[in-house]
Amino acid sequence: MTIEEGFELDSVGKPALAHCAPMLTLDHHPSGRHFLHIPGPSPVPARVLRAISFQTIDHRGPEFGQLGLSLLSSIQKIFKTKHPVIIYPSSGTGAWEAALVNTLSPGDHVLMYETGQFATLWKKLAERLNLSAEFLGLPGSEGWRLGVDAGKIEERLRADTSHSIKAVCVVHNETSTGVTSNIAAVRQAMDGAKHPALLMVDTISGLASADFRHDEWGVDVTVSGSQKGLMLPPGLGFNALSPRAIEASKTAALPKAFWAWDEILESNTLGFWPSTPATNLLYGLHESMDMILSEGLDQVFARHQRLAAACRAAVSAWGLEIQCKDPSVYSPVLTGVVTPEGVDADQLRKLILDRYNLSLGTGLGKVKGRMFRIGHLGDCNELSLLAALSGCEMGMRAFGIKLKGSGVLAAQEALQ
Amino acid sequence: MTIEEGFELDSVGKPALAHCAPMLTLDHHPSGRHFLHIPGPSPVPARVLRAISFQTIDHRGPEFGQLGLSLLSSIQKIFKTKHPVIIYPSSGTGAWEAALVNTLSPGDHVLMYETGQFATLWKKLAERLNLSAEFLGLPGSEGWRLGVDAGKIEERLRADTSHSIKAVCVVHNETSTGVTSNIAAVRQAMDGAKHPALLMVDTISGLASADFRHDEWGVDVTVSGSQKGLMLPPGLGFNALSPRAIEASKTAALPKAFWAWDEILESNTLGFWPSTPATNLLYGLHESMDMILSEGLDQVFARHQRLAAACRAAVSAWGLEIQCKDPSVYSPVLTGVVTPEGVDADQLRKLILDRYNLSLGTGLGKVKGRMFRIGHLGDCNELSLLAALSGCEMGMRAFGIKLKGSGVLAAQEALQ
Amino acid sequence: MTIEEGFELDSVGKPALAHCAPMLTLDHHPSGRHFLHIPGPSPVPARVLRAISFQTIDHRGPEFGQLGLSLLSSIQKIFKTKHPVIIYPSSGTGAWEAALVNTLSPGDHVLMYETGQFATLWKKLAERLNLSAEFLGLPGSEGWRLGVDAGKIEERLRADTSHSIKAVCVVHNETSTGVTSNIAAVRQAMDGAKHPALLMVDTISGLASADFRHDEWGVDVTVSGSQKGLMLPPGLGFNALSPRAIEASKTAALPKAFWAWDEILESNTLGFWPSTPATNLLYGLHESMDMILSEGLDQVFARHQRLAAACRAAVSAWGLEIQCKDPSVYSPVLTGVVTPEGVDADQLRKLILDRYNLSLGTGLGKVKGRMFRIGHLGDCNELSLLAALSGCEMGMRAFGIKLKGSGVLAAQEALQ
Amino acid sequence: MTIEEGFELDSVGKPALAHCAPMLTLDHHPSGRHFLHIPGPSPVPARVLRAISFQTIDHRGPEFGQLGLSLLSSIQKIFKTKHPVIIYPSSGTGAWEAALVNTLSPGDHVLMYETGQFATLWKKLAERLNLSAEFLGLPGSEGWRLGVDAGKIEERLRADTSHSIKAVCVVHNETSTGVTSNIAAVRQAMDGAKHPALLMVDTISGLASADFRHDEWGVDVTVSGSQKGLMLPPGLGFNALSPRAIEASKTAALPKAFWAWDEILESNTLGFWPSTPATNLLYGLHESMDMILSEGLDQVFARHQRLAAACRAAVSAWGLEIQCKDPSVYSPVLTGVVTPEGVDADQLRKLILDRYNLSLGTGLGKVKGRMFRIGHLGDCNELSLLAALSGCEMGMRAFGIKLKGSGVLAAQEALQ
Repeated sequence: MTIEEGFELDSVGKPALAHCAPMLTLDHHPSGRHFLHIPGPSPVPARVLRAISFQTIDHRGPEFGQLGLSLLSSIQKIFKTKHPVIIYPSSGTGAWEAALVNTLSPGDHVLMYETGQFATLWKKLAERLNLSAEFLGLPGSEGWRLGVDAGKIEERLRADTSHSIKAVCVVHNETSTGVTSNIAAVRQAMDGAKHPALLMVDTISGLASADFRHDEWGVDVTVSGSQKGLMLPPGLGFNALSPRAIEASKTAALPKAFWAWDEILESNTLGFWPSTPATNLLYGLHESMDMILSEGLDQVFARHQRLAAACRAAVSAWGLEIQCKDPSVYSPVLTGVVTPEGVDADQLRKLILDRYNLSLGTGLGKVKGRMFRIGHLGDCNELSLLAALSGCEMGMRAFGIKLKGSGVLAAQEALQ
Repeated sequence: MTIEEGFELDSVGKPALAHCAPMLTLDHHPSGRHFLHIPGPSPVPARVLRAISFQTIDHRGPEFGQLGLSLLSSIQKIFKTKHPVIIYPSSGTGAWEAALVNTLSPGDHVLMYETGQFATLWKKLAERLNLSAEFLGLPGSEGWRLGVDAGKIEERLRADTSHSIKAVCVVHNETSTGVTSNIAAVRQAMDGAKHPALLMVDTISGLASADFRHDEWGVDVTVSGSQKGLMLPPGLGFNALSPRAIEASKTAALPKAFWAWDEILESNTLGFWPSTPATNLLYGLHESMDMILSEGLDQVFARHQRLAAACRAAVSAWGLEIQCKDPSVYSPVLTGVVTPEGVDADQLRKLILDRYNLSLGTGLGKVKGRMFRIGHLGDCNELSLLAALSGCEMGMRAFGIKLKGSGVLAAQEALQ
Repeated sequence: MTIEEGFELDSVGKPALAHCAPMLTLDHHPSGRHFLHIPGPSPVPARVLRAISFQTIDHRGPEFGQLGLSLLSSIQKIFKTKHPVIIYPSSGTGAWEAALVNTLSPGDHVLMYETGQFATLWKKLAERLNLSAEFLGLPGSEGWRLGVDAGKIEERLRADTSHSIKAVCVVHNETSTGVTSNIAAVRQAMDGAKHPALLMVDTISGLASADFRHDEWGVDVTVSGSQKGLMLPPGLGFNALSPRAIEASKTAALPKAFWAWDEILESNTLGFWPSTPATNLLYGLHESMDMILSEGLDQVFARHQRLAAACRAAVSAWGLEIQCKDPSVYSPVLTGVVTPEGVDADQLRKLILDRYNLSLGTGLGKVKGRMFRIGHLGDCNELSLLAALSGCEMGMRAFGIKLKGSGVLAAQEALQ
Repeated sequence: MTIEEGFELDSVGKPALAHCAPMLTLDHHPSGRHFLHIPGPSPVPARVLRAISFQTIDHRGPEFGQLGLSLLSSIQKIFKTKHPVIIYPSSGTGAWEAALVNTLSPGDHVLMYETGQFATLWKKLAERLNLSAEFLGLPGSEGWRLGVDAGKIEERLRADTSHSIKAVCVVHNETSTGVTSNIAAVRQAMDGAKHPALLMVDTISGLASADFRHDEWGVDVTVSGSQKGLMLPPGLGFNALSPRAIEASKTAALPKAFWAWDEILESNTLGFWPSTPATNLLYGLHESMDMILSEGLDQVFARHQRLAAACRAAVSAWGLEIQCKDPSVYSPVLTGVVTPEGVDADQLRKLILDRYNLSLGTGLGKVKGRMFRIGHLGDCNELSLLAALSGCEMGMRAFGIKLKGSGVLAAQEALQ
């Protein structure tokens, strides 16, 4: 059927419609479901998609105020904090910026830790904001296979006797590698060094998938986003605050307006925002938090761990290496798979997408073309993971890669 | 049923939800349609709501790249520009900030013009960013009833012989008052003064409702948002650029990262974004631009003018004053209605919302409580406007206001 | 923007997509809301539209069984009955047929009453099913302006001393005219005549809008449909039963299979159906009954009465005649408006649809071209009715009809 | 979380809803996608779910007429016919009834063929309609593992020298067993016997999945439904007609009204229906036919064959028997899997649903408890099938069944 044979409206009332354009045909995938197994955006549950399709309402009206209060209360449970959580209409990158501009002053020294591409991007962003960012880590791409070494941070902080370091910034779940660093250890290291720097943590891809405890771990600013464990489309960024961070924001001299916490905190007391919030994504957030809290955060974390273990069992069965070399920091969110020498991981991903309608994550930065990433986060379950693993192993075989064994069977066994 | 009775979200957070796990009951309005006649967010067409409920896809995949290129091409038509348009996952406030931080340096002097609350907020934002903002305008709230006086701008620029003023910032459609200033005249004034300042225009509530011509009017940065004439939920901000603005961005010294045009422009060449875009709102943008460009921008503008004229006819028939005192700058987007002495406009709005399920815009800033605003933008037509006018006049009568005559009949006559 | 310029997917994975057809552009109405004011289908609330877009599930699975039991319980409250209600995947016409074939035998004599087009169609259907249908009523189209005369029925039944009449069939709310007959009076007449015929009532367009009491009024089979007061799309038909009707079904000899109550009643005990039910419409039914029962049936009826009175006030103000001549049986669901001599009501309706995006009901059968019908049922409220009345009066003026006064103002007054 | 815990609908009816008024929480499945692999309803694509959520319109208005004409034209392509196709708001069971009541008279002798449960149900339905139905086939449940034996039909027809047999009714794709009979052979048999009986074919679960050719195969009435290859929710039934069938309908004496073709055919010429059509399901039909015809019927059939072959490879690898014993009539739609002696297939299905969120089809009638059915029809692809097969084999292992090997690996190989 051609476009012309398609549905046409009556000529009398709507002459312009004869040449009107089609609705966006964006889900014109080949038949059957698309399997989205990148480490975010994660698949958005139908319940959440329906919620974001509610009619937009007046963001200054009484109904919105009730929504806002409910959201601001629930989001604290997700971050495990009793302190305020700021919700921005922005990406996670915006939330990175917000964390820095609210707490720091031009030229401030910040200590960051190279765990992978996203730590690298955060450092780059800090530098663009006129901060002096120092990178700890290992040479080359070695650090991209391990978590944060809290000992190195402690050592560096002890050396900073003048307390010139104003903040320590680490990534909780490094999305580019599949490594989930031990944030409690970082806090311990800072306490061990008796250093007053603020602790800022990016858990953009960790929140609501990997256990995270803003208050208990003494995090000052936690940065996150909507399109990962929260199972939402991208478009919301988060800053969870500590009293110390709020205190710091009162004197921090980096210019800030859109990101400024003060006005937002004030408006939030009544469930509103000073500038227009992303109403429909907030509808979705309400729904997804309802799903997560109804399932129970502990159950959610356990589910992620179970699926991640099954995925790693598959990689081992294939005879391939997992990007993360330290089992104690394997990510429950995604697994990085190192492709054999001579295999262009991106060509492989393209073949898998074309043939099996399965999207996998690309290798980023220092490991570009050397690995692919399997996301198993959010609205994922046993059978969708097994489907993805089937797609991976069929694709690798079709690409000419010799596999040691079947990853699917190993994963089945892990899940049995 | 009042709003308070209708909308129930557990006050604490979740305990109630554990039992019934409801989907968000946010459209639990009283029976029948809610009439959203605030000057933005405007009602989102069902086509657009469905589009934003498409499954989220990989924003690095080939399908997304095609979407991105299509969007970036169409959005230029909306702004009437051949130059790049930046799309942010943010509110219009964010786009205000983006315009300034990309083009200016700390302490730069900017000339702004007080047309109402949004001009005032933009100035406040500029000041928070360490700019030196000068406000032109009339004393008290007099300027809130008129458009930009281009003569005043020309005079001020002529006086600035050292060219210390780096930018002139004006609001095209002042959402707080219903005044649409003459931007071509501002450009003429700047040219008349032979002043090199950049011209920055906020048409957040004007775009796609009131005629706007980025290139023809020589605007350097146009700022806009998604939730008005574009008929989308809030969550997207826009900067339309000129070559001079891009040139300025290369040396502007205000710190910028998330908002920085350079990386976005580079990624956009392939239809992508450097950080995660708000995929689902972009689906909606594709759809809404399809609707607007299919109807034709000129038809869209004419429709807004026709409805606005009918709305003003109603206000006149009621014997009430229109906030805008200069007919040459009446807004096609909204009409501000000055309430009679002694009438608390917000109490009136509350009565109208409670009884007739009609949301009207509040008076802001200097005119708080002294006026209400009727939005007639976006997905609005004759009968929905007449419904809103019926709600207004019934509500005013119920509130005890003596009306000279029926606004609905006057509007009918205007539309006949 | 032409189709070709629209969004195209990547050529690699989806070669067929270049010539793919667009999504159905069915809501490509002119800008703004369509006002659907026919007496059914009534506008479907967004909540219900979202509910019918839930993924279809196994209609033999445990989840469905729970849904079924919940539906079958709630629907009894809607009909005000303690006896079973059958739900068919069919139109109301199908439910007419079901009522007859389950209870009657070939050649059976049924007494029907001509209230308008739908009574006429039901009689025609009975005749096609080999029943002997006798029509009571007034000559010409006189009976189309009044309700059922219970006295005539009693008289006829008294004359039927042999009890050859097996059923009395009347329409509760005659959709073609806007007359809501007194069913309690019909039952009284039957009891007065001590006649054992079954009482069958069509309240397709009355259910959940006009008060209806299956048990209290001694109805044996009530026939209804989904697309009126239940605020659903068409596609569900209903038979509410009495014990006598169930008893009669055991010996009724008209052939029946799809419509047969026996197997359905048996399956329904566990919440299932013997053949595949219309799952997604049932999702919608669950939602709409939740809305109706949450609002409260009495509140729903009162709302319909209030809107209907306002609509009639408008018709009177126009100086036009209401089709229903007896105020005691005015319909709360719709109002029939008799157009002046010489006015082709359908040409008028066409003009109103084309100019004001307002759909009105046509005159049917004996009154074709002589009247139009304004629906004010289901998800309707004050402002949408006032919008429709504005559309009517503007359209009538544009058509050249001289109106005595403004219907909108009269309706406003009625609603004040 | 079990289904019972997950899905909550108040047991009484509504009292709980008064408080929390939840939207139907029907998709409260455990985390992640539900895998619906029953042989219908098949999973409904998101595009189609969105289409059925369009606002309902006037089914007598010009826009609907255009939709109707478009539908009636496209549906002919699906059935491969140039003759009319009737669309009912009903289930497939209704369409069975329609085929019979339009063409036959009370007491007419019809020849049916026992291929499984659905052939049996159709026969039972024929008998309820006062037809004299004769069942050909094999004794016991033997015939449930084979297709229609056209030779037996020819033999029986040759013996019917008086032409008392008025119709031959066969099931194309027997949903209860996974056998797709050769309809061309049946037509040949009838022609060979020079018998004038009408040929009626049920392809409820075959249409748009298995090749079907109404005209070429000389079928007089083809019966189908919406919830299988058409990828729609249940609620639409179809009769494709031949000129002989239409001719027969003019004298057929079974009573018919709702199902009567004559009035429908007349209304259909303008794109309308005599009674209210199921508007929103028709929106979905428009969309799904667009998808199918864009992909191309041949591609659709090939895809089903490829997936079916992979599924059978899996069953063989498990060491289990396929219900269909004749490879020439394996169904491309579903595969019946015979469970080992002593295994209650329904307990197994329950375990699989509870643990893996996978719905499989139950054994019906004579094979109840002895088999389960895997649907691989409609919006299905390689990875969703492999997911389902993983669920099956994990479930069977968990149930204690010894499998010969991995079905998933065998299916992967078949699909490689």
